[in-house]
Amino acid sequence: MAAKYVYHFGGGKADGKADMKELLGGKGANLAEMSGLDIPVPAGFTISTAVCSDFYKSDGKYSDDVVDQVKEGVSIIEKIMGKKFGDTENSLLLSVRSGAPASMPGMMDTVLNLGLNETTVKGIIEKSGNERFGWDSYRRFIQMYGNVVMGMKPESKEEEDPFEIIIHSIKEKRGVELDTDLTADDLKEMVSLFKSEIKKRTGLDFPTDPWEQLWGSVSAVFGSWNNQQAKTYRKLNNIPAHWGTAVNVQAMVFGNMGDDCATGVAFTRDPATGNGQFYGEYLINAQGEDVVAGVRTPQPINDSTKSDPSQETLEEVMSGPYKELVTIYKNLEDHYKDMQDIEFTIEQGKLWMLQTRSGKRTAAAAVKIAVEMVAEGMIDKDTAILRVDPESLDQLLHPMFDPKADKKVITTGLPASPGAATGRIVFHADEAEEWAARGEDVLLVRTETSPEDIGGMNVARGILTARGGMTSHAAVVARGMGTCCVAGCGDLKINYKAKTMTVGNNVYKEGDWISLDGSKGEVIEGKVPTIESELSGDFGTLMGWADEARKLNVRTNSDTPHDSTVARNFGAEGIGLCRTEHMFFEGDRIKAVREMILADDEAGRRTALAKLLKHQRDDFYGIFKAMHDLPVTIRTLDPPLHEFLPHEDENQQVMADEMGISLEEVKAKVDSLHEFNPMLGHRGCRLGVTYPEITEMQARAIMEAACQLTKEGVKVYPEIMIPLIGTKNELTNQKTIVVRVAEEVQKEMGVKVDYMVGTMIEIPRAALTADKVAEEAEFFSFGTNDLTQLTFGYSRDDAGKFLAEYYDRGILEEDPFQTLDQEGVGQLVEIAIEKGRSTKPNLKIGICGEHGGDPKSVAFCHRAGMNYVSCSPYRVPIARLAAAQEALREKNK
Amino acid sequence: MAAKYVYHFGGGKADGKADMKELLGGKGANLAEMSGLDIPVPAGFTISTAVCSDFYKSDGKYSDDVVDQVKEGVSIIEKIMGKKFGDTENSLLLSVRSGAPASMPGMMDTVLNLGLNETTVKGIIEKSGNERFGWDSYRRFIQMYGNVVMGMKPESKEEEDPFEIIIHSIKEKRGVELDTDLTADDLKEMVSLFKSEIKKRTGLDFPTDPWEQLWGSVSAVFGSWNNQQAKTYRKLNNIPAHWGTAVNVQAMVFGNMGDDCATGVAFTRDPATGNGQFYGEYLINAQGEDVVAGVRTPQPINDSTKSDPSQETLEEVMSGPYKELVTIYKNLEDHYKDMQDIEFTIEQGKLWMLQTRSGKRTAAAAVKIAVEMVAEGMIDKDTAILRVDPESLDQLLHPMFDPKADKKVITTGLPASPGAATGRIVFHADEAEEWAARGEDVLLVRTETSPEDIGGMNVARGILTARGGMTSHAAVVARGMGTCCVAGCGDLKINYKAKTMTVGNNVYKEGDWISLDGSKGEVIEGKVPTIESELSGDFGTLMGWADEARKLNVRTNSDTPHDSTVARNFGAEGIGLCRTEHMFFEGDRIKAVREMILADDEAGRRTALAKLLKHQRDDFYGIFKAMHDLPVTIRTLDPPLHEFLPHEDENQQVMADEMGISLEEVKAKVDSLHEFNPMLGHRGCRLGVTYPEITEMQARAIMEAACQLTKEGVKVYPEIMIPLIGTKNELTNQKTIVVRVAEEVQKEMGVKVDYMVGTMIEIPRAALTADKVAEEAEFFSFGTNDLTQLTFGYSRDDAGKFLAEYYDRGILEEDPFQTLDQEGVGQLVEIAIEKGRSTKPNLKIGICGEHGGDPKSVAFCHRAGMNYVSCSPYRVPIARLAAAQEALREKNK
Repeated sequence: MAAKYVYHFGGGKADGKADMKELLGGKGANLAEMSGLDIPVPAGFTISTAVCSDFYKSDGKYSDDVVDQVKEGVSIIEKIMGKKFGDTENSLLLSVRSGAPASMPGMMDTVLNLGLNETTVKGIIEKSGNERFGWDSYRRFIQMYGNVVMGMKPESKEEEDPFEIIIHSIKEKRGVELDTDLTADDLKEMVSLFKSEIKKRTGLDFPTDPWEQLWGSVSAVFGSWNNQQAKTYRKLNNIPAHWGTAVNVQAMVFGNMGDDCATGVAFTRDPATGNGQFYGEYLINAQGEDVVAGVRTPQPINDSTKSDPSQETLEEVMSGPYKELVTIYKNLEDHYKDMQDIEFTIEQGKLWMLQTRSGKRTAAAAVKIAVEMVAEGMIDKDTAILRVDPESLDQLLHPMFDPKADKKVITTGLPASPGAATGRIVFHADEAEEWAARGEDVLLVRTETSPEDIGGMNVARGILTARGGMTSHAAVVARGMGTCCVAGCGDLKINYKAKTMTVGNNVYKEGDWISLDGSKGEVIEGKVPTIESELSGDFGTLMGWADEARKLNVRTNSDTPHDSTVARNFGAEGIGLCRTEHMFFEGDRIKAVREMILADDEAGRRTALAKLLKHQRDDFYGIFKAMHDLPVTIRTLDPPLHEFLPHEDENQQVMADEMGISLEEVKAKVDSLHEFNPMLGHRGCRLGVTYPEITEMQARAIMEAACQLTKEGVKVYPEIMIPLIGTKNELTNQKTIVVRVAEEVQKEMGVKVDYMVGTMIEIPRAALTADKVAEEAEFFSFGTNDLTQLTFGYSRDDAGKFLAEYYDRGILEEDPFQTLDQEGVGQLVEIAIEKGRSTKPNLKIGICGEHGGDPKSVAFCHRAGMNYVSCSPYRVPIARLAAAQEALREKNK
Repeated sequence: MAAKYVYHFGGGKADGKADMKELLGGKGANLAEMSGLDIPVPAGFTISTAVCSDFYKSDGKYSDDVVDQVKEGVSIIEKIMGKKFGDTENSLLLSVRSGAPASMPGMMDTVLNLGLNETTVKGIIEKSGNERFGWDSYRRFIQMYGNVVMGMKPESKEEEDPFEIIIHSIKEKRGVELDTDLTADDLKEMVSLFKSEIKKRTGLDFPTDPWEQLWGSVSAVFGSWNNQQAKTYRKLNNIPAHWGTAVNVQAMVFGNMGDDCATGVAFTRDPATGNGQFYGEYLINAQGEDVVAGVRTPQPINDSTKSDPSQETLEEVMSGPYKELVTIYKNLEDHYKDMQDIEFTIEQGKLWMLQTRSGKRTAAAAVKIAVEMVAEGMIDKDTAILRVDPESLDQLLHPMFDPKADKKVITTGLPASPGAATGRIVFHADEAEEWAARGEDVLLVRTETSPEDIGGMNVARGILTARGGMTSHAAVVARGMGTCCVAGCGDLKINYKAKTMTVGNNVYKEGDWISLDGSKGEVIEGKVPTIESELSGDFGTLMGWADEARKLNVRTNSDTPHDSTVARNFGAEGIGLCRTEHMFFEGDRIKAVREMILADDEAGRRTALAKLLKHQRDDFYGIFKAMHDLPVTIRTLDPPLHEFLPHEDENQQVMADEMGISLEEVKAKVDSLHEFNPMLGHRGCRLGVTYPEITEMQARAIMEAACQLTKEGVKVYPEIMIPLIGTKNELTNQKTIVVRVAEEVQKEMGVKVDYMVGTMIEIPRAALTADKVAEEAEFFSFGTNDLTQLTFGYSRDDAGKFLAEYYDRGILEEDPFQTLDQEGVGQLVEIAIEKGRSTKPNLKIGICGEHGGDPKSVAFCHRAGMNYVSCSPYRVPIARLAAAQEALREKNK
């Protein structure tokens, strides 16, 4: 028997189910699920993602099995819908849509109204009795098919869309402004002009054979999996290139057949705030794309979401279909046990459901919905914990506008995606990217956004649009990204040429500073001061549940008492990495550091180090105090010494003057410290081996601070960590120094302190020989930044040059510096843990690279059996949640 | 029962045996062995190497067990020798000597004549009836003990030895030149002056208690394991620091008691040439150190090694002891089945053996002795193969003086260590090091050498001495190092102050060029042309045996037809690494390469690459032809592009002029290619991924050359190797290009070529994911240079700054870039082989890093199951022999 490539749905039956997303894509799986629940879904079928891989492997050809199954699929649709594909009288029209395993809204292609030609268009006019509808559908089809399949869409943004030129010229001729003002004859003329334009540009006749139209569209949709915007979106969202998309072929239903027709999108709860009310927008006499594209501003679906008394809700205008919709949405939320994002069309009074999926939401909404669903008894705590994307919490943790600050609100729009953003106005997505690349905070301001703006939206601090609703492209994408967005701000006039935006009499130019409050929809002049966020309310509740569930401890990377306190408030259970070198730059210290570097001998170095001792001791005192009762891991000096010297002539002269030496001496020292590959040079414990007096000073500073606090009755747990160990002998060498000094200081000060000496595991050789290293180490902490650099042979500072190309070509699917490479680097981590514990079964093991705050990496650390992860203060709650989720996934296995 | 720390020998019995070197050191084990064979050995005992470790751990203290066992040891010596330690009438004197598991001649300390004080000296005078002997022994003891134990030896070379100053002043007062001209009274005065000098300098009285003398000497010898020259020697000879030395305490016998006494050293065969005759030197009325130190030029032991009819041989002067010595040497060679290096003393007509060991020999001698011993039926072929140090073959493989060349021989000395050397004269060891460090070829010219010259001797191309025989320090060390040496060149007058050497009327200054022929003992003016060496005679025979025994194939790293031919003549079985980038620098090519780098787009790059294509094809044609019938592995472009651009202003201007562009453009490109860590940057396959046209051009050049030769009837086996793979996907990307081009070219040229596409394994991640990589790779080749850099996190270019200190402190024992680090890097190699073959059981695997020519690393490659090693042409025979030895060791297990 042939393999199954095509899965049917419709007429209350379905081959597929909701859990078959990998094969059918999200859209296809959920259409099947709805059909199985006897919810009215236009009949159709899904061509599976397996065909997508084959499509690319075989250069766009289909096997006979696929062709046969698609034919059969169309004939089943014909039976259910009682129409015939290509029939002159009762013609079945089809839609062809993409549908990947993960949602990629608007990134791939769609063709609607497929099956129309000069004969069938007459059939549907006759059947619907609506000539305008017939020609409007036909011209839409030609426009879409021309763009998507026949390559009519201009490649450059400067060039205008040839179809839009024709529409514009007809409107001008007729003296009308809106598409809806064009007559059936106008549209008929448009069809004819469109066809000639296609012939002129491509040399091809527009295809009349419905089957040719169908296969052209299916191939175009598969092909759009690898268009540039889809690739960018996948990269931003870590969607693997090899998944591929499914293609959904479905009977058309029409929201644009007249005033008893409508189309809309809705959320079963508010996706911005999480409030528990049915929430949506619709347009009368329109096709679905019109709502999402933001061309006409849609109307609220019901009273409770009305913002203006003049608005007409669906509830009022079509109460029958609305009631049916309410029953269906409750049914769907109850069935999926999650907030749903639904699309519907009403054709001549009959409601059809076109899509359901778990709705994208802000982090705040995700938390609120999860906690409230537990209260409603819909889900349990474990499910609630698993419902919130840990990465999204980032939105809740960053500073918000100070409510007490003075602010000049210049206008208000829809609160499309919450958050507080301050930045400089930029009007084009590519310019936003340029500005951001040179370090500017930018706000992207557009009349409306489109999928090709994705890059600029991603780098913008916030997004402001003049048109479009809560479900417009800008709003949906911004919420997905956790970027603050104010949408549909009608008072705003944007002039792209002049690069200005005008509100009333106020004109703002490119580069001017404004602020956006995405939770209130406010647009504010200038900058607004911010305050720290807090873990309270639903968020606090959820984090409490997470703490009960997780097994990993979560520490923070912090070099100051302030950061330590912030992290502690976010739930940090200690410091996993305190870098001592950051302290070397402050105030007078850098002078002492430079004195040490310039010294010709040990005696000279000791004199300079003596000056640093006091400062370092004070630093550690502050940090230990802030972290009382919790462990604090302090890393000895790590970076190469040249990092402490100026490299530009001007600064070298300043240094020479300050130190009272000649510029030549400074230059000579800088030269002598020059290295070809500083990453692989004289740094980490290698410094401590050649200059043991540095390690001595640091050990003394740590222990003096610890002893002092112990005397003051404060409990401190210093963990002294030696970096860049590649051999056990290096650790022995450094540990001997640390232990000697630590014992001396305790004796001098007459107190005992619980301290440990351990090591970073960041050199592949340390991981491979971890059994030996563990003979000396009292703990391990994985430095996965360096470990990743060395395991891949990439320098983070240089790899940008080729890594972009690596993502584009699918050589790498994720940035290994962001998410730990489990396949390669992960093996070294596992080897080191196994070998380390073979020597010391209870060896304490953690991670302090940036991966410690990345949810997928945290999950790996849990599975690998680490004791803790350590991350930046703002990522502590993210790591707590990620750790809890992995513990639950393990439990549920 | 207490552990055994002290091992006795003497009186025809012994606790130890020859195979206990690890515990007893070489000297101790062989003294025990000789004693067990009933050869006359002065009684003594060995304090084991285990005590050396304890000595360092416990800060120089000894356990009670050690103390007791030493006491017992002395009493056993007393019994056997019939004397008593410290006795006033019949006093036993002792020697205390080092003895490590590996021979470290002259590197550690020795104390002789121990047990003397004002009372015992009178006893031995009375007993020997020789007052001069008594006082001479005593002053020697004070001098040695003062230097070794009491720190009288000046630390700086500039400062004169205080004892030598006293000796000199007495000689002056007496108007004599030689030590032997001093009378008993002179020596008695010397003893008294020595003691006062010690008191003056150290504040201590010279110890009179024999036991205090004994323990002081034992501790000094243990302590000398870590003196600077010993450490340097260990590093040069890869002797681990943790082995430690044993200490031999032995009854003194005296070669300096009168004219019926003598001392000498001998080899059972000629250590320079391997000729099968008893060969040695002796001095009448002398102690052993006098022979080795080269103070008096010793006499030949027998007629057949006499170079001058006036010399008096031992055979003539003391025929009885000589005959006994002949019997013993034959016995020893027969027993050890190897050429022996022996030391003996004749005390009043009685022969005592002080040492036997396998003699150091030149590579030529090693080969000849091994092959001849097989002919003599003394050893089998396998043993012969294992007898020759593969590393030493290097001496036989390098060019020798062209016998047809004109040369002006200015004088002749002893052919102490064979080889041909040309270089500039330098008179001090430290200056030799300085000159060599800046790239000069130097010849070290000394009146005589001493252990502290070891560093300079190591960097010198050749060594020339005015004094000393075939067993002098210079000769022994030079042979050990495989450095050419002409010794005892009596016509030579050296003036260290003026930095000149004079032969007759000719004066040669520091920096003048001379040449040394170490096989003939010739000193030649100026430079002499050289010719390639050949594998013939005994060497060819031995290599033939090795080839039968080995399992590993041996290939070469070669980038030119010339090198390929040299390597083929040395037995290379293919090319394991042909670097394509070296070809990029020749002639016009660099211009085309730079054109490619400067090009703004693919089209520009293709134009430039088209120019390179012809050159590359011609290169490969030449190499394939030289290597007909054998496989040739070609690596695609590896280094970062900036390496092809000039970095200095001057050269940049030249390039700008040549290319007809501005200096600024050149600088801008250089800047844009600048990387912080180029080792970890845009190089290797990363270049091929971003510029696929480079890979295309190279694949085309390779395949066009291969197809052309195939048409001409020459068999070629190209193996195209992609460098710096870290993920399977990179290999897929590059292999796709190579295979496409290869198929195109074969079609165009109408022939089929057997080609393979494989990869370097040089990135840790490639090793860790070798199972995946092997899905694409048709072969693996370990690039252990980069793999070592990444596994340790060391940059070869920068690590010098701290690695010297790492060796000094014993953190590393071997240079991991010279000998593969089996503990760390070796694990990755083993993982990669196991995983690679789990995917493809017959995967061809080799190594092409520099380790491929290092004997220990070759042995590892054999054990790891590789198919071949590849090394530089001159190391091919070394690798062949090393591979054979490891195969035999495996067989013998």
